[in-house]
Amino acid sequence: MGSPGKSLKISIIGAGSAVWSTRILVDIMLKKNLQGAKVYLMDIDEDRLKLVYLFAKRYASEIHADVEFHATTDRIEAIRDSAFVINSAMAKGHRYYEMMREATERKGYYRGINSVEWNMVSDYHTIWGYYQFKLAVSIARDIEEYAPDAWLINVANPVFELTTLLSRITKVKNIGICHGHMEFWNIVRELRLDPSKVEAEMSGFNHVIWLTRFKYDGLDGYELIDKWIKEEAEKYWRKWWATTSNPFDIQLSPAAVDMYLKYGMFPIGDTVRGGTWKYHWNLETKKKWYGPYGGPDSEVGWALYTTYLAYQMEMIKGFVQAESAPLTMLIPPKPSGEQVIDITESIAADVLRKYQVNILNNGLIPGIPDNVAVEVPAVIDGQGVRRISVTPPNNRVLKHVLLPRMMRMEWALHAFLEPSKDALLEWLMYDVRTRSVSQAEEAIDAMLKLPGNEEMAEVFK
Amino acid sequence: MGSPGKSLKISIIGAGSAVWSTRILVDIMLKKNLQGAKVYLMDIDEDRLKLVYLFAKRYASEIHADVEFHATTDRIEAIRDSAFVINSAMAKGHRYYEMMREATERKGYYRGINSVEWNMVSDYHTIWGYYQFKLAVSIARDIEEYAPDAWLINVANPVFELTTLLSRITKVKNIGICHGHMEFWNIVRELRLDPSKVEAEMSGFNHVIWLTRFKYDGLDGYELIDKWIKEEAEKYWRKWWATTSNPFDIQLSPAAVDMYLKYGMFPIGDTVRGGTWKYHWNLETKKKWYGPYGGPDSEVGWALYTTYLAYQMEMIKGFVQAESAPLTMLIPPKPSGEQVIDITESIAADVLRKYQVNILNNGLIPGIPDNVAVEVPAVIDGQGVRRISVTPPNNRVLKHVLLPRMMRMEWALHAFLEPSKDALLEWLMYDVRTRSVSQAEEAIDAMLKLPGNEEMAEVFK
Repeated sequence: MGSPGKSLKISIIGAGSAVWSTRILVDIMLKKNLQGAKVYLMDIDEDRLKLVYLFAKRYASEIHADVEFHATTDRIEAIRDSAFVINSAMAKGHRYYEMMREATERKGYYRGINSVEWNMVSDYHTIWGYYQFKLAVSIARDIEEYAPDAWLINVANPVFELTTLLSRITKVKNIGICHGHMEFWNIVRELRLDPSKVEAEMSGFNHVIWLTRFKYDGLDGYELIDKWIKEEAEKYWRKWWATTSNPFDIQLSPAAVDMYLKYGMFPIGDTVRGGTWKYHWNLETKKKWYGPYGGPDSEVGWALYTTYLAYQMEMIKGFVQAESAPLTMLIPPKPSGEQVIDITESIAADVLRKYQVNILNNGLIPGIPDNVAVEVPAVIDGQGVRRISVTPPNNRVLKHVLLPRMMRMEWALHAFLEPSKDALLEWLMYDVRTRSVSQAEEAIDAMLKLPGNEEMAEVFK
Repeated sequence: MGSPGKSLKISIIGAGSAVWSTRILVDIMLKKNLQGAKVYLMDIDEDRLKLVYLFAKRYASEIHADVEFHATTDRIEAIRDSAFVINSAMAKGHRYYEMMREATERKGYYRGINSVEWNMVSDYHTIWGYYQFKLAVSIARDIEEYAPDAWLINVANPVFELTTLLSRITKVKNIGICHGHMEFWNIVRELRLDPSKVEAEMSGFNHVIWLTRFKYDGLDGYELIDKWIKEEAEKYWRKWWATTSNPFDIQLSPAAVDMYLKYGMFPIGDTVRGGTWKYHWNLETKKKWYGPYGGPDSEVGWALYTTYLAYQMEMIKGFVQAESAPLTMLIPPKPSGEQVIDITESIAADVLRKYQVNILNNGLIPGIPDNVAVEVPAVIDGQGVRRISVTPPNNRVLKHVLLPRMMRMEWALHAFLEPSKDALLEWLMYDVRTRSVSQAEEAIDAMLKLPGNEEMAEVFK
């Protein structure tokens, strides 16, 4: 019997995101079950694409992996007959996002009009995500036509909006994936718990998940958190403030603890980055809640992050250009911890495992409509995603967090599906930063007038 | 065969609201089908109760109506074995509402923290409606115990919140009623249409209903509205601005037309009073959209309204005290146009008619959860409410109007059912008037410290 990976076609759209895709490619090469696979790398940026392609070829030869790589700028060539399409593409890239932010920030919207309650993450297109939504839908349409049996594993943000949108308007089997839930293990580590005795469950929406169940050795894990808050948090924060070098290091920040005390469940991963404006009015407020950099989504933290991405990119370039440098020095041959290739293996080789995925609710979380994507645990095997029963968030989280976040999702999808300038303006009429109708109009106009937004301006007349 | 009204017991809770209840009592007395009924008037204000009782007795003798009246301050006595309980009670009355408004207005919340997008109506308790919600629930509990087969017809605001709440947590058969939809006929009159050729339907939530269907003589009625806007609106507004003496005269105001152009359906009745802050930032803005008084919910319009109520009350007192004055001079013996007694008759005497009612959605409007009260047309007869299919609002109304209004309803109910100071604070974290957390905290504290709010302060610790 051959490997389940034999002749399996996997395509990665947006493969030029080198910092992310090099790690994913290593994951593929390490999988015994995926040996013999053909991986199509697709991107519209030829330079980045070539870099990733060269990396993959050389890495495969270094570790003797039997995976065939192809690079193409032709999306249909990549998608045709694929069993898996992994989408990590960000339309127009980070620089575009920053332009949008800057244009609307100048009109009085700190961190841009896309940053709102429970979505302060700095590269998560929602109301202004026209190009990103259009790209994801067009990829799904290509899959419908050229690889109708393929699974679309979408890691591109906004995972919440895109999973909901694609599930509503396309026939493609799709799963939304994010790594944010892994941050939970930082709590386990800080509480000095034995991971093998931990039982935990998280649910909600992507970037808005909550620790709905937490047992340790059969006991209530929340009691351990309460004890930590009472006895150790202050000390932890003092040391953390003085020593942390990572703006994303906020899983146990004052913001996270405050959200827990306020909403009655612990926020996990990117959830901590959200919240109402209470945590985000300005840099000073952000620092109070998120530490010395004001968290990843302050002007400081985000600059550090984009610099870090650029630095990583240079590292990859340097290693690939210096042909003698072993790439396993850059990225050791170990699983990245990302779920995407594990999921690919689970489906392709029928390996049953539990994951944290984004799928349509269909009754999993009471109080949330069926046709809204939730982020929940689910089991995946050769049959695909198997829904399991889920511990839902409490009422406080449901009403005060999930409902407003869901409303913004509905507004973002509505603006994309029935575009009008009014649909953009309404977004701002509910924004606490709005002081007048003319301010809102100016922000929308400034955004639509940006170079690169010509099509958007035409569509949102 | 005797009258269906023979020995029928109808109780009116909050009957001391004389301006409203005198008209309703006349409606009862005019109904042939309700002759022989016993009407229990209940209020905690003995003076007002006595006034209404004396009015009813004398009016009955003037028009020779066979209706028996009882006045009581004992709610259980009123409710016991009733076939219909009509609730029009406003806990603590208008003065309390104004105190709440003033206390929070002083903290920077123009028109009070209870006024928010799509609920600018000035006596519609939501987030701060603790006493009003508690009163309605306790009435329903009395019905469960002392008149389990009774219909509760609730005309007390907030009809949207109360209908949803009572339907969710009690077993009482309840219908929420409002007269706002009648304003539609002002459009018909202004467009000089023959009412007999009009076919119209409105749906949404209470105070947020939209003209979802409008035919005139088989043709599209919206074309007539469009024509009116194009050819007559300007002229109408000039005359209206110069001559209108009623702050509620806003069915064809610039606000209504703007909402229609923005959302694609015409707002009906109290819906026009809502909207985002675009229409309400301040008195100047309100005047621009609602005419010389800034609409009923500006500081000017509302003062006129409360003065009018006081004046009407004095009129009723004067007539009742002057025993020689015929009460039919004060209120002519004609139906008031309110639905409540017609509905009573429909159920008691099996008279099938169509009404505009508030009932749980249960699939009537797609995109709205089943357990949320919608305001829709329905047929009522001896069997009670019969659900009929409904033309739902369009997507723009659904997403941009009904979803945010529904969220505020959920927050208000959540605050009542799981009270905490945080539940009140969260309300303000999404308020465009909020500039800081401390401003929000001060507003909540000021409200909870008001005399009369001792119990509320204890509950919302």
